[in-house]
Amino acid sequence: MKLDKLVGERFKERPVDCVVDSHALMIRGGYIKQVGNGVYSSYTVLRRISAKVERIIKEEMERIDGQEVQFPVVMPAALWEESGRYASVGAELLRFSDRTGAPMVLGMTHEEAAVHLVREYANSYTKYPFMIYQIQTKFRDEARARAGLIRVREFTMKDGYSFHTSQDDLDDYYSKCHHAYKNIFARMGVPQVVSVESDSGMMGGKVAHEFMLLAPAGEDTIVVCDACEYRANMESAERVHKKPQSAENLDELAKIHTAAAKTIPEVCDFLKIPETSLCKAVIFQKEDNAFVVVFIRGDLEINETKLKNFLKEEIKPAIITLESGLSAGYTGPIDLPNRISETTQILFDRSLEGGENLCCGANEDEHHYTGFSVARDFSQKFGEVAFHDFAKVVDGDICPRCGEPEIDLMRGIEVGNIFQLGTKYTQAMQMQYTDQNGELQYPLMGCYGIGVGRLIASICEASHDDYGPIWPKAIAPWQVHLCCVRADDENVKRLADSLYSQLQERNIEVIYDDRPVRPGVMFSDADLLGVPLRVVCSPRNLKENVCEIIARDKSVQQKTPIGQVLEEIENLLC
Amino acid sequence: MKLDKLVGERFKERPVDCVVDSHALMIRGGYIKQVGNGVYSSYTVLRRISAKVERIIKEEMERIDGQEVQFPVVMPAALWEESGRYASVGAELLRFSDRTGAPMVLGMTHEEAAVHLVREYANSYTKYPFMIYQIQTKFRDEARARAGLIRVREFTMKDGYSFHTSQDDLDDYYSKCHHAYKNIFARMGVPQVVSVESDSGMMGGKVAHEFMLLAPAGEDTIVVCDACEYRANMESAERVHKKPQSAENLDELAKIHTAAAKTIPEVCDFLKIPETSLCKAVIFQKEDNAFVVVFIRGDLEINETKLKNFLKEEIKPAIITLESGLSAGYTGPIDLPNRISETTQILFDRSLEGGENLCCGANEDEHHYTGFSVARDFSQKFGEVAFHDFAKVVDGDICPRCGEPEIDLMRGIEVGNIFQLGTKYTQAMQMQYTDQNGELQYPLMGCYGIGVGRLIASICEASHDDYGPIWPKAIAPWQVHLCCVRADDENVKRLADSLYSQLQERNIEVIYDDRPVRPGVMFSDADLLGVPLRVVCSPRNLKENVCEIIARDKSVQQKTPIGQVLEEIENLLC
Repeated sequence: MKLDKLVGERFKERPVDCVVDSHALMIRGGYIKQVGNGVYSSYTVLRRISAKVERIIKEEMERIDGQEVQFPVVMPAALWEESGRYASVGAELLRFSDRTGAPMVLGMTHEEAAVHLVREYANSYTKYPFMIYQIQTKFRDEARARAGLIRVREFTMKDGYSFHTSQDDLDDYYSKCHHAYKNIFARMGVPQVVSVESDSGMMGGKVAHEFMLLAPAGEDTIVVCDACEYRANMESAERVHKKPQSAENLDELAKIHTAAAKTIPEVCDFLKIPETSLCKAVIFQKEDNAFVVVFIRGDLEINETKLKNFLKEEIKPAIITLESGLSAGYTGPIDLPNRISETTQILFDRSLEGGENLCCGANEDEHHYTGFSVARDFSQKFGEVAFHDFAKVVDGDICPRCGEPEIDLMRGIEVGNIFQLGTKYTQAMQMQYTDQNGELQYPLMGCYGIGVGRLIASICEASHDDYGPIWPKAIAPWQVHLCCVRADDENVKRLADSLYSQLQERNIEVIYDDRPVRPGVMFSDADLLGVPLRVVCSPRNLKENVCEIIARDKSVQQKTPIGQVLEEIENLLC
Repeated sequence: MKLDKLVGERFKERPVDCVVDSHALMIRGGYIKQVGNGVYSSYTVLRRISAKVERIIKEEMERIDGQEVQFPVVMPAALWEESGRYASVGAELLRFSDRTGAPMVLGMTHEEAAVHLVREYANSYTKYPFMIYQIQTKFRDEARARAGLIRVREFTMKDGYSFHTSQDDLDDYYSKCHHAYKNIFARMGVPQVVSVESDSGMMGGKVAHEFMLLAPAGEDTIVVCDACEYRANMESAERVHKKPQSAENLDELAKIHTAAAKTIPEVCDFLKIPETSLCKAVIFQKEDNAFVVVFIRGDLEINETKLKNFLKEEIKPAIITLESGLSAGYTGPIDLPNRISETTQILFDRSLEGGENLCCGANEDEHHYTGFSVARDFSQKFGEVAFHDFAKVVDGDICPRCGEPEIDLMRGIEVGNIFQLGTKYTQAMQMQYTDQNGELQYPLMGCYGIGVGRLIASICEASHDDYGPIWPKAIAPWQVHLCCVRADDENVKRLADSLYSQLQERNIEVIYDDRPVRPGVMFSDADLLGVPLRVVCSPRNLKENVCEIIARDKSVQQKTPIGQVLEEIENLLC
């Protein structure tokens, strides 16, 4: 198509309100226009990219026997009441009433609709396994829509749901789908996507993976091992603790007046010890307000997700009361069990296993102990301590898979996720089948999501320069950006027009710029559209009997004799 | 794909709550499942048909330079306030609030979003003309969702919006789009679709067409001339009145006591006259409750749309009060102007032009006049009567285009519509461009819709038998339905398996039924899926070294030697 007919504006300046590059470039390039908070219209350029992304996703879903269906955007609340999510999900589920007053919701995900669609059909083991999926508009009433298409309220998502009669079969399909996702990202030309183990929530026992596109603008922290294939979401990453060798001398316990030194750095500074020599207390409260005191090495942070999963309930930062027996800022293990009520729980992170000659709070204002040894001063008195993994992983930690100290923390954007849901929805919604023995069983489910718009924005985030996105060939809106510099020069125009027709005849997608604008404007517009190959016809090139061919990613920059241009383009696009 | 893996149930019995065939067959065949009132999920079979319909629509839109975009499903109310439609549209526009309390709407059409997307871009005449379109989910909170996919609340629609700098240019594009629509329906194999002039509402002066698929289950009445190309929606169809020759004798006016005879048939029966000899009064009230008395020939009905357009305001059936001066059931023209208040309006339909020797109400209970002549007994006293066209067209009426008495009334389902919107939205939303002379102008708009689901249901309505839909090749979910009768017979199974692979290799879409079920079940399932060609492998056929090939529309029913089956299928599908 011709650029002068392409609907959408392109802007030279970065909009002031854009915090991430993909947002800025997609506004500047005429990809999106904001209609409301977290709600966008897409121009043709983005629609072309989306169509390619959707086609690749569909092909890979069909390859693993996915059957495309379509669920409604608007659903009766009654369906969500069946699963219990109408009550349990927060304000991100948009609830409203129709003209008759019937309560409705906007679909933010479709587990309920999937079970509803197949509940009667899949009544016998012979119908299993199967997977249904859709690519459809969803709405999640995010409190903080931000960063353009990275976090919106209305979005297009591929969501798939598989149904199985055994855990083995679910595992098998789950890994097939994991592989299909790898294919999808590979075909789209984004090797930056890695799959990471993710937190499966408090449901327990289920497997989940997130697909993360590594990019500095990412909201998530990913734990990567540089020595092996291990990757995990920070929330679910296990921290390996290497028990230190026993100290040659165990110091005596000594209570010290640390006066105004209260924070970790202040205490370390006051006592001239490293943070690793501290036994720090972090205090939470459960939903019933019972206290949970977690001791952890001074240099480490609590991973609240791991703690919640261990407790199997929600936690919140504690508000410490006088009656609690806890001394805010000075809580330590020594004699603590004797000071607190029965409902208060004391936990130790693994980082304290074998901990000796430590400093800890003295459960008394302005005082700490030194010479604290977990075994001698706590276990011997109150019984053997069970150490658990509650710590956030840090750079240089030991990999839980290969054991090398090669853990690296990176930033990523979640572009897809897969979950084993088990029987959560089928039980709640009474979906059953008859097994080989004539007995009723609940099928197991898996679910598989990819956000189309966020994926595209993430690819832009990972692949761009100051001038615009650098789209991988497989999803670029066009393959060739043909520039006719000085369209008022008859010979140049004739050559460019002829290349335009010939590219179209060869089914090469081409956007043709023959506007009477300065080359600078023409090239900056081309940069914003991010098409893989730019082909330039100009009076100077024509004099040399060549066209310039420049790859958007700068891997190619050459002058090609006019007679060989078409062939060269085809070669470069292979 | 294999039928035993196809998600969705098929049912032998017609569901009791289905009033139209397409609804019943799409439930029976596993195409749709109802999620709520007017809200459906689609199974794979329907999704495959939809994908083909959408592809044909897209191709034809691109061919007339349409650029695909995407508007949001959920929009801020503020956008609809700009056009005035937030207030003017009724409860079918679903209004709700998001988590912050901001008022939102669900898009039922996207004129506002289209103007919003291009308002700044199209600021110069050089950008025109252009057309943007989307295929997207819409929600219209219909008071009476009915008939399966024919009238739903949530639906998928292609909606396009074109922008122009002159009426000539709009006309030109409008007719291009009209032609594209014809292509779309022709390519889908539904010659039953006709385009009809439609009512353009009270905006006046704008052109509009509806595309109607002729089917007995249709909700709309279409006026068709059997002698020429004239087609119109009943609402907008002009009725031509041929003024009768003057009577040889004008009877004298005579007041008659008609006693209990009050309705048209009763009066005709009492006086032994045909309904065409009656001058009937139909009484309405305007929004301010002023009365409108319309006189029309006794055999004809009022077309309220034409009356509304004439009055340029809404009307409702009258509640006749004592003060009105009107005599309910006995209103007639004679002396009427002297009995009523100034705000009451008296109108005559064209069918009374030249009316003589008529019977009419006497404005007195239980009395009528005979011998009424419009000219002698009304015009001479109260001034020349202006006759207007307020009557519904009836079978056998005169065609307003060719003048032949060949008007025929048919039933149709509206599957598409195109409108010239003029500057209604661009003025309201302050979209302007600079013309050649540097002056600001409002662009003209056209809009172009096709409901995807309704179109598919309508095609089913127009093309089915008692056993299932008969899908046209271009949109059928598969091209070949391969039946392996007696899959337990090794030789039959081997043949069918081999045909299955070979059809797939030739890129012929095939659904393969090798279930161990009776041929009756197999064939009735095939009928419900409506695939163009059924190919049957069975022990009996194998003995004869043939396969049976049967077209779903019964145009082909043959035994083909096994070696020629593939070639024959390819020929038949051409």
